[in-house]
Amino acid sequence: MIKSIFDAALTDQTAYRNLEYLCKNTKGRLPGSPAAAEAVEYTRQELIKAGADTVWLQRVPVPHWERGFEECKAVSSIFGVTDLSISTLGFSVGTTEDGIIAGVIEVKDFDELKKLGKQKIEGKIVFFNRAADNTLVNTFAAYGGAVSQRTQGASEASKFGAAAVIVRSATNALDDFPHTGVTRYADEVTKIPAVAVSTIDAELLSKWLRRDPATRISLISTCMNYPDTWSYNVIGEIKGSLKPNEYITNGGHLDAWDITEGAHDDAGGCVQAIEMIRLYKTLNIKPKRTVRAVMFMNEEMSGTGGRGYASEASAKGEVHYAAIESDRGVMSPRGFGFEADGERLEKLQSLAKWFAPYNIRDFDKGGSGSDISPLRPSGTLLIGYIPDVQRYFYYHHSANDTFDKVNIRELQMGSAASAALVYLIDLLDI
Amino acid sequence: MIKSIFDAALTDQTAYRNLEYLCKNTKGRLPGSPAAAEAVEYTRQELIKAGADTVWLQRVPVPHWERGFEECKAVSSIFGVTDLSISTLGFSVGTTEDGIIAGVIEVKDFDELKKLGKQKIEGKIVFFNRAADNTLVNTFAAYGGAVSQRTQGASEASKFGAAAVIVRSATNALDDFPHTGVTRYADEVTKIPAVAVSTIDAELLSKWLRRDPATRISLISTCMNYPDTWSYNVIGEIKGSLKPNEYITNGGHLDAWDITEGAHDDAGGCVQAIEMIRLYKTLNIKPKRTVRAVMFMNEEMSGTGGRGYASEASAKGEVHYAAIESDRGVMSPRGFGFEADGERLEKLQSLAKWFAPYNIRDFDKGGSGSDISPLRPSGTLLIGYIPDVQRYFYYHHSANDTFDKVNIRELQMGSAASAALVYLIDLLDI
Repeated sequence: MIKSIFDAALTDQTAYRNLEYLCKNTKGRLPGSPAAAEAVEYTRQELIKAGADTVWLQRVPVPHWERGFEECKAVSSIFGVTDLSISTLGFSVGTTEDGIIAGVIEVKDFDELKKLGKQKIEGKIVFFNRAADNTLVNTFAAYGGAVSQRTQGASEASKFGAAAVIVRSATNALDDFPHTGVTRYADEVTKIPAVAVSTIDAELLSKWLRRDPATRISLISTCMNYPDTWSYNVIGEIKGSLKPNEYITNGGHLDAWDITEGAHDDAGGCVQAIEMIRLYKTLNIKPKRTVRAVMFMNEEMSGTGGRGYASEASAKGEVHYAAIESDRGVMSPRGFGFEADGERLEKLQSLAKWFAPYNIRDFDKGGSGSDISPLRPSGTLLIGYIPDVQRYFYYHHSANDTFDKVNIRELQMGSAASAALVYLIDLLDI
Repeated sequence: MIKSIFDAALTDQTAYRNLEYLCKNTKGRLPGSPAAAEAVEYTRQELIKAGADTVWLQRVPVPHWERGFEECKAVSSIFGVTDLSISTLGFSVGTTEDGIIAGVIEVKDFDELKKLGKQKIEGKIVFFNRAADNTLVNTFAAYGGAVSQRTQGASEASKFGAAAVIVRSATNALDDFPHTGVTRYADEVTKIPAVAVSTIDAELLSKWLRRDPATRISLISTCMNYPDTWSYNVIGEIKGSLKPNEYITNGGHLDAWDITEGAHDDAGGCVQAIEMIRLYKTLNIKPKRTVRAVMFMNEEMSGTGGRGYASEASAKGEVHYAAIESDRGVMSPRGFGFEADGERLEKLQSLAKWFAPYNIRDFDKGGSGSDISPLRPSGTLLIGYIPDVQRYFYYHHSANDTFDKVNIRELQMGSAASAALVYLIDLLDI
C-alpha cells in the first residue's frame, strides 16, 4: 500500500495543477483579501473533486492589513541617492504620505540598542542589520536567530524614541528580494513604521553608513490597519470506518503574504493535504479514523485559523488522535519531526523502515507547526513534515516564492510521505 | 575540522560565482567548441586562484560535432501543421537542407520495431515514445530505462530501413524542452538522422498518430560531424605532505551540451572540485596524499577525458588511491555511493557519523561515475557523490539546466561533503 501511495502520487499532476492555480490566480492571499477568498473557494471545490465525504468552511476572525505605496531612499552627500528594495512588515503602521526623513543608526541587536540609549536614538531610523548565520545547517535555526529584530524591532526601538525601523530580511540569501513578515507592537509603545530591506541593500546601506554616518533615509509607506474581518479554514474529510469520532488532521496554511505567490509557503502544504484525500479515494483506502485535510487561514499574521480549529474541536468534544503540518516548504522529503517521547516515539521511529525505499530517513523528536500546536493541550500527537530546507529561506515571505520553484516530484514525494504516515499511524494505532 | 570545512563552504560565494561564470560565459561548451576552450582557460585560472600548488592541462582527443539549422513539423490532413520542439542528438548525421518528409511509425521499444519489420518501417520515420517510469524513486533508474532508444534507436531503426528517428526526451518531466544526448551508430548500419522531441510534443504527436495514422513528419537538421580535434582536462593539485605519489581525485566534467548552460550537468561538479582546493588552502589542510581537482573534458560525447586521465596515470605509474565524481547535479547532498565491499565498505560506512549533523546519511555500495571508472582496473577506490535527484532530469541535457536552478547552499553543502570525505579517507587511510 505504501508503494501504491507513492506510485499514485508520482504519476499524477492534480496537486501540481492545484498549486499552479493557487500561485497564479490567488497570489498575495493575505487574510481578509479577495485573493484569500478565492483561495478558500477554490480549495473547497478541489476537496470535493478529490472525493472528500464532507467539505466545509470554518469561520475564523482575521486581521485586515493592507500595504500602500512604499518607497525608501538612502541619501548621502558622498554617495548620492539610491532606492532601497523594501517591503513593509505586516501590522506596521504607515507614515504620512510625505513620509519620514531621518538619520540612521545601525544596530545588530537589542543590547546594542539599549547601550545607545534614548539620546542617540530619538528621532532616528533604527536599522537592524543582524544577518542569518549561514553556518547553521538547519536553516530554521538561522532564521530563528535573526527574526526577533523583525518581530520585535519596531517595538524595542520605539521605547527609545525611534522614528521608524528598517530590518534586514530574515533570509540566508544575499539577494534583491525584501522578505516581509509580521512585526508586533507591545501594548505600551508608540507604534512606528517598520520595513524589511533586501540583504543586498542592507549591505549597501551598512557600507554607506560606515563611510558616511550622516546618511539619511527617506521612507514612505502608506499601509493601513483596518478592523478585523472574517475568513475561513477549509476542511475536507473522509469519514472513519471504525472510529469516526477520532480525527487525524493533515494540513498547511492557505494565506500568504501579499507580495508573493506563496508557492512553498504554504500553497504547497495545502495541495499536499488535498492530495492525501485524492490518493485515499483513488486507492480506496478506508481509514479507521476520520482523516481530514485542513487549509488553515491566517497562519502568517495571528494564527486565528489554528486556534479556531482547536477550540471548535474542543467545544465539540472531538478526539484528535494525530495531526501533521506541512509548513516548511515542499522540497524533497527528509522525514518527520514528532512531538513524542518514550515508547510512542520509538513506535513512530519504527515506521522509518517503510520510508527508507524513498530515501526518507529522518524520524526524530522535533517540533510540529504553529497551526496544529493549539491541539497540543488535548493530547494530540503532533507531527511536522520535514523536507530538505537548504533553499527554503531564499523564497520565504518574498516575491521569489513562485510556482516555478516547486518541482512536481519533490512536491509529490512529500504528498505521498504524509499520506503514507497517516495511513500507518491509523492502521497500526500508533 | 569537518565543521570548519562546512562553515567555510557555507559562508563563501566563490564556487557559486565560478558556476555563474561557466553558465553565463561558456554556455554550450561542447568538446572542441570555443566555449569549451574558454571554460578550460577559466577553470585553469580559478584553480590557480584557489591556491593549487600545480595546475596544468592534459591534452585529450575529442570529437567535433556541430548542430546546424533544425526544424521538425508534424503534418496532418486532420489537425494541420505544427512545429515540434526538437534537438538533434549528438553524433547524428544531418538531413539535406531540404530535409526529409515521411510517414511516422510509433514504437515503444526495439521488440516492437522487430515485430513491425522492414516492410512497415522502410522509408518511414520511427518515433520512439517510451516514457521514463516516474514511479521509480531513483530517477537515474527511470532514465536508464528510457535512454536506450536515444543511444541505439537510430542504429536499430536503420537496420529496418528507417529514414530517421524521433526520440521522446529521456526525462521525468512533461515539458517543452527537448533533452538531447548522444546517439551511437553500430558499424554496419546506414547512419540516419536522430532527434529528441520534448515530452509534451511527443504526447501531441502520439495523439495525432492515433487519430490520423497518415500524419507525416517534415524534418530538417543540418548538423555535421567534423574530424576529431583536441581539448583538455584541467587539473589542479595540492601536493601530498607524506605520500605525494598517491593521489585522490575529485572531479566533474567541464563539457556540456551545446543547447544548455550545463549548470547541474556538470559545471556544478567542476566548481565543487575547485572549491575543495580553495577550502583546503583556506583552512590550511595539508593532506598526506596528493589531492587533485579534475575538470574532465568530453564526458558527454565519448569519454576521452576520463580515459585519457586514467591512461596517463597508468603510464606514469601513479598510485590512484581514491576518486570521487560529482555528476548527478548539485542539489542538496544525500551521501555517497562506494564501489567497495566487505571491510573497506564498512570502514567507509563508519564515516557516516561525521556527516549526520549535515543530514548526509546515505553511505551505501553504489556506482561512481563514467569519468573516474577508467581508474577501476588499477584498484582505485571509486566513489559517486549523491545529491537529491528528484529534479535532476528536469534539467539534464536541456536548455532548462541553467544557473538559477542551482541554490548556493545546496551546491556548497555538496562541496563541503566531498572535501570532508577526501579529508577523512586520506587522514584515516581508509
